[in-house]
Amino acid sequence: MNSQPAPLLDPHADIVDLTAAIVDINSVSGNERALADAVEQSLRVHAPHLEVLRDGDTVIARTHRGLAQRVLLAGHLDTVPLADNLPSTRRTRDGREELVGRGTCDMKGGVAVFLKLAVEATSAPVDLTWIFYDHEEVAAADNALTRIAAEHPEYLQADFAILGEPTSAGVEGGCKGTMKLEVTARGVAAHSARDWVGDNAIHHLAPVLERLAAYEARRAVIDGLEYRECLNAVAITGGIAGNVIPDRASLTVNYRFAPDTSVEQAEAHVREVFSDLDLEIEVSDAAGGALPGLDKEAARSFLAALGEGVSVAAKQGWTDVARFSALGTPAVNFGPGDPLLAHADDEHVPLADLEMALAGVRRFLAA
Amino acid sequence: MNSQPAPLLDPHADIVDLTAAIVDINSVSGNERALADAVEQSLRVHAPHLEVLRDGDTVIARTHRGLAQRVLLAGHLDTVPLADNLPSTRRTRDGREELVGRGTCDMKGGVAVFLKLAVEATSAPVDLTWIFYDHEEVAAADNALTRIAAEHPEYLQADFAILGEPTSAGVEGGCKGTMKLEVTARGVAAHSARDWVGDNAIHHLAPVLERLAAYEARRAVIDGLEYRECLNAVAITGGIAGNVIPDRASLTVNYRFAPDTSVEQAEAHVREVFSDLDLEIEVSDAAGGALPGLDKEAARSFLAALGEGVSVAAKQGWTDVARFSALGTPAVNFGPGDPLLAHADDEHVPLADLEMALAGVRRFLAA
Repeated sequence: MNSQPAPLLDPHADIVDLTAAIVDINSVSGNERALADAVEQSLRVHAPHLEVLRDGDTVIARTHRGLAQRVLLAGHLDTVPLADNLPSTRRTRDGREELVGRGTCDMKGGVAVFLKLAVEATSAPVDLTWIFYDHEEVAAADNALTRIAAEHPEYLQADFAILGEPTSAGVEGGCKGTMKLEVTARGVAAHSARDWVGDNAIHHLAPVLERLAAYEARRAVIDGLEYRECLNAVAITGGIAGNVIPDRASLTVNYRFAPDTSVEQAEAHVREVFSDLDLEIEVSDAAGGALPGLDKEAARSFLAALGEGVSVAAKQGWTDVARFSALGTPAVNFGPGDPLLAHADDEHVPLADLEMALAGVRRFLAA
Repeated sequence: MNSQPAPLLDPHADIVDLTAAIVDINSVSGNERALADAVEQSLRVHAPHLEVLRDGDTVIARTHRGLAQRVLLAGHLDTVPLADNLPSTRRTRDGREELVGRGTCDMKGGVAVFLKLAVEATSAPVDLTWIFYDHEEVAAADNALTRIAAEHPEYLQADFAILGEPTSAGVEGGCKGTMKLEVTARGVAAHSARDWVGDNAIHHLAPVLERLAAYEARRAVIDGLEYRECLNAVAITGGIAGNVIPDRASLTVNYRFAPDTSVEQAEAHVREVFSDLDLEIEVSDAAGGALPGLDKEAARSFLAALGEGVSVAAKQGWTDVARFSALGTPAVNFGPGDPLLAHADDEHVPLADLEMALAGVRRFLAA
């Protein structure tokens, strides 16, 4: 006789109902406990084949069947703040059925698929690690994977990882790295009616902007996927008062670099672009990219399970797949929902995406 | 028998004592009433030859002797905020005696010289208008001269004007005009990992900064005075978030133009500089300059009274002399104190400047 209370989440429910149930447990970043409790409880009740660990508001569930390969499937439990878009609703638009509400796209559809399959996949050809984690939509320092990578890197150990972020149920391999640099020009302040006794720092940014505007970004093809680099000014600021020649002006440059480039190489490249200019350049933020690893056995088997029709592309934006890559694990993004709808007020997921993502991962685990 | 109470300010006092007394009546912009009352009272008691008018916190005093020429002498009563530098103190530094404190330089030394001479000059060769006005150190719209020029332009009517702003007791003729323009570039927002679907507005400012950096400013010589024009970015701003290609970036350009150039010509010139670029340009502020008018009879007589040794230069910064110029009255700046010390925490005036300025204007009015 099982003494556990009945779980809030029934993993045997229809994937749409399960997604809606997960969406309707509000879990804006910092408020993930109720959903983590529900996921943990559901796994403890319905998945006796899994070792279930609780670490803060992260739930980790693993098989230990002694198989040659381990595949990790991870999804975050949190969402960005609500936009008066809970509880979820269903609608039909242009003949397409959709589930609407905060988290439907980013990424509770993926969480639902993973929770359902964690319970169902008792005899997969690989050992499995499922991670449902907190604090993804906030600063990287608060992301549960940061803590787990530091305290329990063994939890994240795998041969291949699938992150359930929205990709419209296509495969988006790896991700580019990202770096922010503060570029500062100095001058000499003066009254703007006597500029010849000063030196305008804003004007010193002219060649910096010129080079950014003329920059021809590299396109790196890795495992057949094209990563397009980007080098941009994302912020510019300068000025003291309307009648003063400013003695300081600065620019925030964001460099998105291909995953075959290290953080150190990325920094060296940006410094090279501006090397002959009199500037102060400081890296304020950096995270390496992730290689797609599509040549790896588990990845090939995943692609085969998804079938010929699946879209396979490079992931251009940085995601948590890079955390797995940093631990030596190639990773892809794969989940229901259009990534452009993540964080949108009208966030929604097509019901067909949920079914397609479920079917794809199910085939992979049954292979 | 005089029924007036004894005035706070004794115009017959030594010029240094009179300056200190004026300085010690706190009159930060908006708080000029006590000083305006003291000046008005002093004039009413000690200068029966003058018509004294009160307009808000501005005091106007005039002779009506039917002379061929009228000279206007004006000084503002207000100061910028205190920097714990009142009451005034005296000190000797490097053998030089100084009066120290807020307003000593900008411009209560000039106010003291004018108050003293308003009382003393009963038989000048020209009719005189003395104006002691409020709200100079704040927005032009609040400047008392703005109101008076609109409501009583006849008060400002004269053949020549002397503004008692600090010039180290040299003559600074006329002033350049000033114009601010908001220059905006538009683009298309996008995620900074996919810049090819966007259009970076900050990068569009590259040619704008390039032209400003390379700009060769005109030097206009008028009445023997050289006005150096200046065209500068005084502020720059753009950026939405660290991971977003910004769709808008803007620059504030300040153009300081020679007084032979109208506001309309100045605007046309700046638009011409950027004419082939896709930008939105809007004038946010403009004020024409002032011609020095040193060829005018009253000006020549003023320079003659000051003597050969006096320094005569163009005024580069905009001052209220332009308000007189706009009414057709040539004007110069002339007052005790180093203009670079205006607004400084260590604001001070050499006692010798006070004596020199007093002696110079006294000779002019006695000529």
